[in-house]
Amino acid sequence: MLRHVYRPNSPAPAREMPHPGRFSQRASRAGGQPISELMHQALARPNLVSLAAGFVDQQSLPVEPVREAMAALLEEPLEARAALQYGTTLGFAPLRERVLAELLAADGQTVAETGLSADRLILTAGSNELLHLVTDTLCDPGDLVLCTAPTYFVYSGILKNLGVGSYGVASDAQGLIPEALDEALARLDRRQELSRVKALYIVSYFDNPRGVTLVGDRRAAVVEIVRRWSQQAGHVIYIIDDMAYRELRYAGPDLPSLRRYDEAGDTVITTHTFSKSLSPGLRVGYGLMPKPVLDAVCDQKGNINFGSPNFNQHLVAKLLDAGRWWPHVERLREAYRPKLAAMLAAAEEHLGPIEGVSWVQPEGGLYVWVELPSHCDAGPNGKLFDLALAEGVLYVPGEFCFPGEGTEVRANSMRLSFGVQPSERIHLGMAALARAIVKATD
Amino acid sequence: MLRHVYRPNSPAPAREMPHPGRFSQRASRAGGQPISELMHQALARPNLVSLAAGFVDQQSLPVEPVREAMAALLEEPLEARAALQYGTTLGFAPLRERVLAELLAADGQTVAETGLSADRLILTAGSNELLHLVTDTLCDPGDLVLCTAPTYFVYSGILKNLGVGSYGVASDAQGLIPEALDEALARLDRRQELSRVKALYIVSYFDNPRGVTLVGDRRAAVVEIVRRWSQQAGHVIYIIDDMAYRELRYAGPDLPSLRRYDEAGDTVITTHTFSKSLSPGLRVGYGLMPKPVLDAVCDQKGNINFGSPNFNQHLVAKLLDAGRWWPHVERLREAYRPKLAAMLAAAEEHLGPIEGVSWVQPEGGLYVWVELPSHCDAGPNGKLFDLALAEGVLYVPGEFCFPGEGTEVRANSMRLSFGVQPSERIHLGMAALARAIVKATD
Repeated sequence: MLRHVYRPNSPAPAREMPHPGRFSQRASRAGGQPISELMHQALARPNLVSLAAGFVDQQSLPVEPVREAMAALLEEPLEARAALQYGTTLGFAPLRERVLAELLAADGQTVAETGLSADRLILTAGSNELLHLVTDTLCDPGDLVLCTAPTYFVYSGILKNLGVGSYGVASDAQGLIPEALDEALARLDRRQELSRVKALYIVSYFDNPRGVTLVGDRRAAVVEIVRRWSQQAGHVIYIIDDMAYRELRYAGPDLPSLRRYDEAGDTVITTHTFSKSLSPGLRVGYGLMPKPVLDAVCDQKGNINFGSPNFNQHLVAKLLDAGRWWPHVERLREAYRPKLAAMLAAAEEHLGPIEGVSWVQPEGGLYVWVELPSHCDAGPNGKLFDLALAEGVLYVPGEFCFPGEGTEVRANSMRLSFGVQPSERIHLGMAALARAIVKATD
Repeated sequence: MLRHVYRPNSPAPAREMPHPGRFSQRASRAGGQPISELMHQALARPNLVSLAAGFVDQQSLPVEPVREAMAALLEEPLEARAALQYGTTLGFAPLRERVLAELLAADGQTVAETGLSADRLILTAGSNELLHLVTDTLCDPGDLVLCTAPTYFVYSGILKNLGVGSYGVASDAQGLIPEALDEALARLDRRQELSRVKALYIVSYFDNPRGVTLVGDRRAAVVEIVRRWSQQAGHVIYIIDDMAYRELRYAGPDLPSLRRYDEAGDTVITTHTFSKSLSPGLRVGYGLMPKPVLDAVCDQKGNINFGSPNFNQHLVAKLLDAGRWWPHVERLREAYRPKLAAMLAAAEEHLGPIEGVSWVQPEGGLYVWVELPSHCDAGPNGKLFDLALAEGVLYVPGEFCFPGEGTEVRANSMRLSFGVQPSERIHLGMAALARAIVKATD
C-alpha cells in the first residue's frame, strides 16, 4: 500500500526526526509566569507559611449552596438536559440577565433606567479568559495598555503573551492618580505614541496586588481623562475595569463602578467573576461592555470555544435564583474580616518596629502590600527572599507587579495574601517575615 | 478635584467620541462563521426540519449518570471543596490519568507498556479550545495547515482567525488519500513553501462533514509520509488527529488511532472530547501530545485561563470511576444507530431515484455527505438552498467545508446531520430535500 506513494521527488524515508523547530511567536511569548515557580517552591516545603497564593479560603467554598442548586437543576429532566447540551457563545441568557441586574443594582441602577440589555454581557470561564479575550480583541503586538503601577501580574503575563507593552501609571493609597494618568497620556502623545494606546487596565476595588480601591473622587476624573485623550487619539481608548474583588468588602460603603461615570457607555469595559465571591472551580466570569467590543469579543470567543460550559452557567443561575449568593458573600466577609485584621495586627506588632517598613491598610480583598526600606531587595534573587524561605514564609516579590515602562520597578516591595491561611498561621508567617527583614536589612 | 489635572498640553474636554477604530488584526479575522447565519435562519422557522445542526440528541443527554456522580462528588465536603477551588492549568490529575488509560486501552495498549504519563495530557473546555490552542501554538499568520478536503468548517474558521492558510488534500470514501498527501507536500516543496507547513489536520473517525473514517491501511502511510516530509522541511510537521466522534461507532470494529503508528511519539497530537460521547454542556475535552507541544500549549493556556473548570473535571472523573461512561456510550449507539439507518433508508428512497445524486454510507458519527450533479449549486446563494428552505428543510452547504487552496471547492455538496431529529422527521426532511433537488435540477 505504502510503497507506490514514493515518488522520484520524495525525500528518503525518515530516520531521525528534526528538532520540533520554532513554535509561533505568540507561543514564544507565553512561557514563564514567575508565580508558577514560586508555587513550586511552596509545594516543595509543606511546612512553609505561604502568604503568596491568591487562592480563596478552602473552608469558605460553598458546598451546601452548590448541592442545593445542583439538586434543583437536575431534578427537572428538561432543564437538566438543556444544561448538559451546548450553550451559546454569549452564554446562558437567564444568567446574563440576572448578572446584569446585579451589576446595575450594585451601582444603584435598574435595567429599565439604563436601557442596557443582557446582549451587552458575555459569560466566560472566569474573568481571566475575558481579560485575555478583550485584550486580544483590542490590541495588536506593539500596542500599549496603561496599567496601574503596581498591577496584577497575571494580566502583565497576558500582555506579554500578546506582544503588547504595559505602561505604568503611578498609584497611591487612593488608587490610580489622575494627574499621573493625564501626564502619561500627554507624554505618549508628545512621543507620537498615542496611536499605540488601546486601553487602561485597572483593578478598581481592593486591587491585586495592593488592596487599594480607587476612591470616589478619582473615578469621574479617570473616565473623563481617558475619554478626552481618546478624542485626541482618534480612536477609543477603553478602560478595562476588573472588579474581581468588589464583593470582598469588610468595612466601609461600596462605591459606584467606573461604568457609572461613562454616561455614553462607550468607554468602560467591566469585567467581573464569581471566582472570588463564590467558587473559582466553577469558573464563571462575565463582562459588560460597549456593543462594538462585545460583538468583536463574541466573534473571537466563537473561534476559541464557542461558549464556556453551559452546565456551570445553569448551576450559577439556579444558585442566584435561590437567593444563595448574597448570604454566601456575607459569610465570606465574616470569614475574611478577621483574617485581614489578623494580618494588620501582626504587621503592627512585627513589622511596625522595623524602620522604613510600611503597608497599605485595605478595606477588603485578599492582599496587603508591604514596602521596605529602599535598599532592601525583596526580589526572587535578593537576600530577603531566601532568608524568608529559611524562616518558613513565602511572599510574592513586588517587582513582578510593575509594568514594563512608564514607572520605576520597586524591588523593595511584596504582596502578602491573607486569604488561604488561618489567622494563627498568618501571625506565624508575619513574625517569620519580620525576622527575615531584620536580617536582610542588617 | 478634576480641574487641576487639565494641563496646557491636554486636549479640550471630549464632546463627541471618535469611532471605536480598528480592533486587532486577529479580531478582524474572527467574524462571520457562516454556520451562525444558518442557525439564525433555522431559529426563525420553528417548523423547519434542520438537518444542519451538529448538536447531539437532546434526549440522549446523561441526566441520571450526572446526578449520581454529582451526589458522590458533593457528599464528601473535603472533595467537594477541592472541586470548587482553582485547579491546575493541565487539569485534574486523576482525570488525566483515567483518560490516558482509556485512550490507550482503545488502541489496545496499557500505560505501562507505552511509558506515557498523564503529564503528556491536558484538559480543555471541549476539544475546540484545544484545536485553537494547538494551532495558535504551532502557527504564525501566513503558515499553512493541510486539511482533508472537505474538512470541519469550524476548524477552517480557527485557521482564518489565526491568519493561517488551509491547504486541501483529496479524500475519498476511505479517508485522506496518501498519494494526494504526498503530492501536496511535494508540490509545496517545489514552490519552496514547505517551511510554512506546520500541521496536517484530520478527523480520523466518522469525520465532520462526511462521516468518513480513515481506513486502517492508510493510517501508517499518512504518518510515514508526514514524518518523511518533516525531515525534508527541517521542522516537525504535526498531525492533529481530532477523534471527537470515535465512540459513536454503530457498526464494524474500532481502528487503532494514528498515534499507534507514530512509534517515536513525536508527530501525532491527539485531540478528543466528552462533548459527543457524554455531554457538550460540561465541556471537557483533552489532548495527548509530544512533550514540547504539550509544554507550549500549557504555557499558552496559562495565559488564557490557567485551567478549565476544575469542578467539571472532578465530576467527569467521578462519572468514569462509577463505570457510568461506557454504558452511556452504548445507549448513545443504540439511539443513533436507527437514526443513521433512517437517514440512509430515506436517502435510498428519496434521493436514490434522482440521477447524479450520491452519498457516503458511514459506520458512525453524526453526518451524511451528499453530492449532487455537478451543475447543481447547493451554496447559500444558489437556487437549491432557498428551494430547500421553502420545502421546510435546512442543510449545511458543502462549500463551507473546503480548504482555501490545494483542492477545488465542490459547491454541489451538502452535509446532513441525523443527530438532532427523530427518525420520522429525518424522513420528512429527506423527502423535502429530494423535492427541492428535483426542482433545482430541472
